[in-house]
Amino acid sequence: MIKCLKNAVILKHAYDTPVRQNLLIGDDRIIGFYPVEHVPKSDLIIDLDGMMIIPGMVQSHVHLPQVMFRGLADDLPLLSWLKEKIWPLEAAHDAESTYLSAMLGSMELIAGGVTTVCDMESVLYAEESARAIYEIGLRAVFGKVLMDYNDTPPELGGMPDTFFESTRETIDKAMELYHGWHGKADNRIRFAFMPRGILTTTEELLQELAYLSSETGCLVHTHACETRPESELVEERRGLTEIKYLHKLGLTNERLLLAHCVCVDDDDIAILRDKRIGVVSCPLTNLKLGSGIAPLEKMRIENVHLAFGSDGAPCNNNLDIFQEMKFASLLQKGTLHEPTAMNARDTFDIATRGGANVLGLDADIGTLEVGKKADLAVLDLDQHETAPLQYSVSSLVYAGNPHMVRHVMIDGRWVYRSGEFPDLDVARLREKALAAQKRVLSRYENK
Amino acid sequence: MIKCLKNAVILKHAYDTPVRQNLLIGDDRIIGFYPVEHVPKSDLIIDLDGMMIIPGMVQSHVHLPQVMFRGLADDLPLLSWLKEKIWPLEAAHDAESTYLSAMLGSMELIAGGVTTVCDMESVLYAEESARAIYEIGLRAVFGKVLMDYNDTPPELGGMPDTFFESTRETIDKAMELYHGWHGKADNRIRFAFMPRGILTTTEELLQELAYLSSETGCLVHTHACETRPESELVEERRGLTEIKYLHKLGLTNERLLLAHCVCVDDDDIAILRDKRIGVVSCPLTNLKLGSGIAPLEKMRIENVHLAFGSDGAPCNNNLDIFQEMKFASLLQKGTLHEPTAMNARDTFDIATRGGANVLGLDADIGTLEVGKKADLAVLDLDQHETAPLQYSVSSLVYAGNPHMVRHVMIDGRWVYRSGEFPDLDVARLREKALAAQKRVLSRYENK
Repeated sequence: MIKCLKNAVILKHAYDTPVRQNLLIGDDRIIGFYPVEHVPKSDLIIDLDGMMIIPGMVQSHVHLPQVMFRGLADDLPLLSWLKEKIWPLEAAHDAESTYLSAMLGSMELIAGGVTTVCDMESVLYAEESARAIYEIGLRAVFGKVLMDYNDTPPELGGMPDTFFESTRETIDKAMELYHGWHGKADNRIRFAFMPRGILTTTEELLQELAYLSSETGCLVHTHACETRPESELVEERRGLTEIKYLHKLGLTNERLLLAHCVCVDDDDIAILRDKRIGVVSCPLTNLKLGSGIAPLEKMRIENVHLAFGSDGAPCNNNLDIFQEMKFASLLQKGTLHEPTAMNARDTFDIATRGGANVLGLDADIGTLEVGKKADLAVLDLDQHETAPLQYSVSSLVYAGNPHMVRHVMIDGRWVYRSGEFPDLDVARLREKALAAQKRVLSRYENK
Repeated sequence: MIKCLKNAVILKHAYDTPVRQNLLIGDDRIIGFYPVEHVPKSDLIIDLDGMMIIPGMVQSHVHLPQVMFRGLADDLPLLSWLKEKIWPLEAAHDAESTYLSAMLGSMELIAGGVTTVCDMESVLYAEESARAIYEIGLRAVFGKVLMDYNDTPPELGGMPDTFFESTRETIDKAMELYHGWHGKADNRIRFAFMPRGILTTTEELLQELAYLSSETGCLVHTHACETRPESELVEERRGLTEIKYLHKLGLTNERLLLAHCVCVDDDDIAILRDKRIGVVSCPLTNLKLGSGIAPLEKMRIENVHLAFGSDGAPCNNNLDIFQEMKFASLLQKGTLHEPTAMNARDTFDIATRGGANVLGLDADIGTLEVGKKADLAVLDLDQHETAPLQYSVSSLVYAGNPHMVRHVMIDGRWVYRSGEFPDLDVARLREKALAAQKRVLSRYENK
């Protein structure tokens, strides 16, 4: 069905000047842009008078199974956070609670203008998150966590042994997900290999993943350089910095995507840039857990491929790309004492084209262009917090928030319309999620 | 009229446990709290089933006349920001544009759960802001900017001479506002003396204000220790740090309220604490303008009297106390590498009781208590960004936003009801504000 979205102010990409236009969309792709006077022939005309259309935004590092634990692990030292809360809570999940957690998170993301995520699941029940993503209509790269070796000392938050699988088992389970889900829904759902981090994987596993990634074309997504103590431990035990160690194992290429990169030195940054490695910055999480502030502006100037992620709800506590943009930009300005750093356009570019790029999806999404997928958000900028009305990238980055988002289209389909999910009973889902949370907490408390 | 708000989950103060209760309110003050089963006799019963009632929040440093310039001065070096944008724009204001700017800002504040502000106006048209505040029903301390001496070097953003008044003139104008407005609307509107800063005032003026403050009981509110270069300049020209200089002039007492305090050393902090001086931290502004990060946790532990402020819309770009809370807390955690720093309750306390305290209004507002003013916000926490539903201070500080606010009561009157301003034509006000902005910009461009 051909749809015409008319009379909207369209921002095609971060460096574009927003202009009132009509947008023609086929089943799933953008057909063309037309002057307002020219309403092209279409099956359905939707008047978006005064609204702003922007490219759907991308969150390149989230943990949907953790949404269930929002607000349950605040203001704790990192070790208590992990050992007393996050690990045992994750271990207490069941299939349905994982699915519902992913549904809550997906709703929050879409309602906030995000159309694509890279979602790192738990060790177990990854297919339940995939099912939620598939059903709600989100575009996603997902994968189960792979762990085959417990090299984290207890005082650094040593994980329960129940999380660990043998090298063979963990790879087999990943490949099962690959075969079952990769490319599903006209390529909307993609699979990635997601080892948790260097201290929880054998060298053998990482090398095998380097091979499987080159064979399948799937990304390898992992945490790296998140905290100083963990980075130092890797250096002590592997004899190399995290980035150099991954380089040695043959993982450093454009299919590698690293979350965090707070503690990176100039050598690391050179490798990240030269090997076209994707870096997902999670500024709120890095602050809330006390990890620090990533050298984002430096990496940006060095042309490292950047994206944003909200990480897990317990360490943020939102999945709100507007907040990631604002924190990212303001943190660089404030700590560099340079108000021109990370300007609004560069920041919005990271949240859209950048996110698409690190996921290898920039041919299809990240900007609004003829031939690209129709992944977009429609915003009402006529709000108290943006008055006087201004159609600008600044309004999005410095004054924006999820509540401006009125409609969201993914793959040419309205998944969110007039502030509602047309196909979902949101109240019922929240009720079921509360019941599931109660169940998980009771298992957690009885351990 | 006696009103009963029944069935709401009430948080009386930051350290309280939220409990479902009924709240009885007289004309303007809280009469009592009752168990849900007990609905006391009243003229009006309002069922707030499932909503959360919190104390109205306090923004202790804003510039409402600058709301008109939101998004017009982003990503600029500080000097260009001041000299090319903010000063000439402020100079281009007229009476009506000032009034409309204050109306937009007041609406944003109230719709975001703020019931009290400390508003620093421009040199001119301060009474127009006061009128807007008075009409909309906000509780406020306000004052015109006082400047009688231009000691800022041109390279540090020297101000246009048109902003300066003689010492006598600037005091006379302030006293006129004091006589016209102080104590108006049953003490809802209060006046304060607001010298801009040390480099734009004579010693004579500051000493006179110290005297007038002790005579009238009115606060003295000014900017201090905002940026390193300005602080160094004060030290060079006055021979003392900003705090010590104010101390020498007899201004350091509980009626002094300082915005920013980014660049304060241990001696300064000791004076701030010992003299019970109020400090308003503006974390977003301090980042966006490249000033840095205030040692907030250190001051908090030292028992300095703290509050939050959004400052002006061009340097933020919202007047959103939820953002101030989240940035304030996360910044301290991240830069101190200490996830337990500035916990949710301590942060919310600063935004409520702390704000009331630095304004000298804590006998009347800041917490919900029998006998205190009925200044409160009613929140709907059943949102995507807070699911699964949890009535907690963490939900407010780490996951909250202005769009949760459904109703706001100030002085016992609903100024905001079901997401609307019952007495205002918001669309018409925004239209008029856009027209006024056009007028101001045309004057600005023709200068």
